[in-house]
Amino acid sequence: MTICFQSPIKPITIPQLTALSNPKLRFRCNLSLPSRYPLTSTEPEPVYASVKAFAPATIANLGPGFDFLGCAVDGLGDFVSLSLDPHVHPGEISISEISGDNANKLSKNPLWNCAGIAAIEVMKMLGIRSVGLSLSLEKGLPLGSGLGSSAASAAAAAVAVNEIFGGKLGVEELVMAGLKSEEKVSGYHADNVAPSIMGGFVLIRNYEPLEMIRLSFPEEKELFFVLVSPEFEAPTKKMRAALPTEIGMPHHVWNSSQAGALVAGVLQGDLMGLGKALSSDKIVEPTRAPLIPGMEGVKKAAIEAGAFGCTISGAGPTAVAVIDDEERGVEIGEQMVKAFLKEGNLKAVANVRRLDRAGARLVGSISR
Amino acid sequence: MTICFQSPIKPITIPQLTALSNPKLRFRCNLSLPSRYPLTSTEPEPVYASVKAFAPATIANLGPGFDFLGCAVDGLGDFVSLSLDPHVHPGEISISEISGDNANKLSKNPLWNCAGIAAIEVMKMLGIRSVGLSLSLEKGLPLGSGLGSSAASAAAAAVAVNEIFGGKLGVEELVMAGLKSEEKVSGYHADNVAPSIMGGFVLIRNYEPLEMIRLSFPEEKELFFVLVSPEFEAPTKKMRAALPTEIGMPHHVWNSSQAGALVAGVLQGDLMGLGKALSSDKIVEPTRAPLIPGMEGVKKAAIEAGAFGCTISGAGPTAVAVIDDEERGVEIGEQMVKAFLKEGNLKAVANVRRLDRAGARLVGSISR
Repeated sequence: MTICFQSPIKPITIPQLTALSNPKLRFRCNLSLPSRYPLTSTEPEPVYASVKAFAPATIANLGPGFDFLGCAVDGLGDFVSLSLDPHVHPGEISISEISGDNANKLSKNPLWNCAGIAAIEVMKMLGIRSVGLSLSLEKGLPLGSGLGSSAASAAAAAVAVNEIFGGKLGVEELVMAGLKSEEKVSGYHADNVAPSIMGGFVLIRNYEPLEMIRLSFPEEKELFFVLVSPEFEAPTKKMRAALPTEIGMPHHVWNSSQAGALVAGVLQGDLMGLGKALSSDKIVEPTRAPLIPGMEGVKKAAIEAGAFGCTISGAGPTAVAVIDDEERGVEIGEQMVKAFLKEGNLKAVANVRRLDRAGARLVGSISR
Repeated sequence: MTICFQSPIKPITIPQLTALSNPKLRFRCNLSLPSRYPLTSTEPEPVYASVKAFAPATIANLGPGFDFLGCAVDGLGDFVSLSLDPHVHPGEISISEISGDNANKLSKNPLWNCAGIAAIEVMKMLGIRSVGLSLSLEKGLPLGSGLGSSAASAAAAAVAVNEIFGGKLGVEELVMAGLKSEEKVSGYHADNVAPSIMGGFVLIRNYEPLEMIRLSFPEEKELFFVLVSPEFEAPTKKMRAALPTEIGMPHHVWNSSQAGALVAGVLQGDLMGLGKALSSDKIVEPTRAPLIPGMEGVKKAAIEAGAFGCTISGAGPTAVAVIDDEERGVEIGEQMVKAFLKEGNLKAVANVRRLDRAGARLVGSISR
C-alpha cells in the first residue's frame, strides 16, 4: 500500500498526470450527445483503492475576457477524496462528507452537488457499472466569492474519478464533465472549470463543439494575483442580471481590442500590458462594480499601490490585482483591504497567489 | 552618388531601417497636442538628395478584429519618391506626379492627398523650415479595394520624409502622421496605417494616447493571404453605414472571444486557429457581406478549397483567405475568382501574398 498526501498550500511538485498534460494548444470535443457515452470500449478497472485530488481556484472574466477567459491560482482550492466502496450500489456514487467553509450549505445528494454531478458524468463517460464510489469534499474555497468555488469542486471530482480508474479521459472530456456541473449550479460556462482542470490561462473559443485554447504565460516570468475577498455576498445570478443586454459599437470595439490585448499580454509575458487590459473593461465591470460596496475605491487603491491592473474576479465580490512580485503583492493587498473598509465599510482578507500552471491533479493515492 | 532602387514585388532583403526596427512590443505616443511640434530640438539637415519608399498593402479588421487589428502583405503597395527641390517654397511640399491605378482621381494638392497630408505632418514633427520637397506618388494599389490604399500612400510618404532627414522619428510618430492623413481621408483609424508602417500584425489598443501592440507571427512559419478583388466599388463610408449600432451581449461575447482567439492564433503560429477566428465574425461581416455581390459564396468556395479561413479585407470588396502554402493559395484563389463570377456576376483577380514582416521601408536613395 502506498500512501502519499500533499497539501496544495505549498507548491505541489508531483509530476502532472499524463492524461492532463496534453501539450496541444487547442482542444476540441463534441460531446453534446450523451448517447455517445461511454467513451471507453470496455469498463475500466479501478487502479486505486482511493485517491485524493486537488483543483485550484480560478479567476474568470479577467475584465474584457468576460465569459470566455479564465486562469487558475495556486494554493487555493478544493479537495475531493474518493474511495471504492462496497456499500455503495455499483455504478453509483455517494457523498460521505463535506467539510470546510459553508459545508452545511451544500447538498449531499450527488445530483445536486457540484462535485457529485461532475463525478457522475465522468462515471458515465467511463461506463462504470461494477463498482460504487464514496466521495468526500473538502471546501477550501468560500461559496459565492468569485473564485470558481463550484468549478473547483467539480474539477477535483472529475479528476479523482478519472484517476481512480487509470486516467483514461483527457482534459477535454473532464472539462465537459465539469461543464455539466456548472450548467446545473451556476450557468453553462467553462471559463472557471476549464482553467481549474487545465491550469494556466484558458480561452473558451466555442461551446458547440467545445473548443479551448491554452494560453501559455512564459515559464520564466512571475505572475502574482492579489485576491481580496470582502465579507459580502454577491450571488452570481444577481451580478449576471446587472449586465447590459445591448452594447454600443464603440464599447464593443474597445472591449474586443482589450480582449486581444489581454491575450497578447499573457502570451508575450507582458505583465504591464496584461494588467492594463485587465483594468480596461467598459461593459461588465462598470455595471457590476457599483453593486460591490467600495469596489471602485479598491481598484483605485490597487493601482495607486503599484498593481499593473485590477478588476472583479468572476462575478465578485473578490477583487483581483496583478503584480510581478510577491512582497509588493502583499503591500497592494493591504491597501486594497483598507480601501474595502474605508470605501465600502467591509472587512476583507487578502491572498497573494501565483498563477497555477498545472491545474487539477492527484495529490494522494492508496493502491488496491 | 549612390543609386539603389529595388522593386517590392520580389522580396526586398535590404536591412530594415534603424528607426523602424524598434523591438518593443508596445508603443505609446501621446501626440494629440500639435503645440508639441516640432519633436526635434533643432531642424535636421537632409541626408539624401532624394529617396524612394515603399509601403505595403494592409488587411484591416480581419473578421473579429474590427477597427483595431490589421496586418501587412508583401509585394503589393505604393511608392513615394521624394526629392529636395529648390523650386518648392522652404518648409513646403509639392506633389509633382501621381501615377498608377486611378491616379487621376487623386488630388495633387498636398492638403487633400493622403501622401501629402502625412508628409506635411512629418515635416511639422521635424520642424522643417529650410528646404522644400517634391513628392511623386506611384499607386500600386487600387482605390477603395479594402487593401489600405490610402494608408499605404500615407505610410510611404511619412517614411520617405523621415528618411530624407536621417530617420529621426520612430514608428509611433510615423503612425501618428499617417493617422492624421487617414482621419481626413477615410476616418480616424490606425489599423491600416500602423501595420503598413510597422509590418506584421499590429493591434491598436488605444488612441488617446496611441498605443499599439506588435503581434509577432513566428518567423519559422509560413502565412499566405489569398486576396481576391472583384470589379466592384465598395466605398468605406457606405460599408461603415451598414454597421449595427447596438450589439447583443451574446454576439459581443462571441466576437470578443474570437478576437482573443485570433490574437492567440497569430502569436502561437496556429494557422488553423487563426483562420477559424478570422472566419467567425458575427457582427460586422454579416452586415457587410450581403453588400458585396457573391461574397458569401466566395467565402464558402475558399473554405471548401481548403483555406483555413476567409473574410472581407478592410471594408471590402476584396475577400481574403489564409493558407500556409503558396500553391494551394493559387488554387484557392482560382475557386474564389470563379465564385465571384458565378455567385456575384463579378470579374475578379486573385493575388497570393506572404505576410509582410518589415513594413514601410526605403527602397532607394540618392545621396546629396
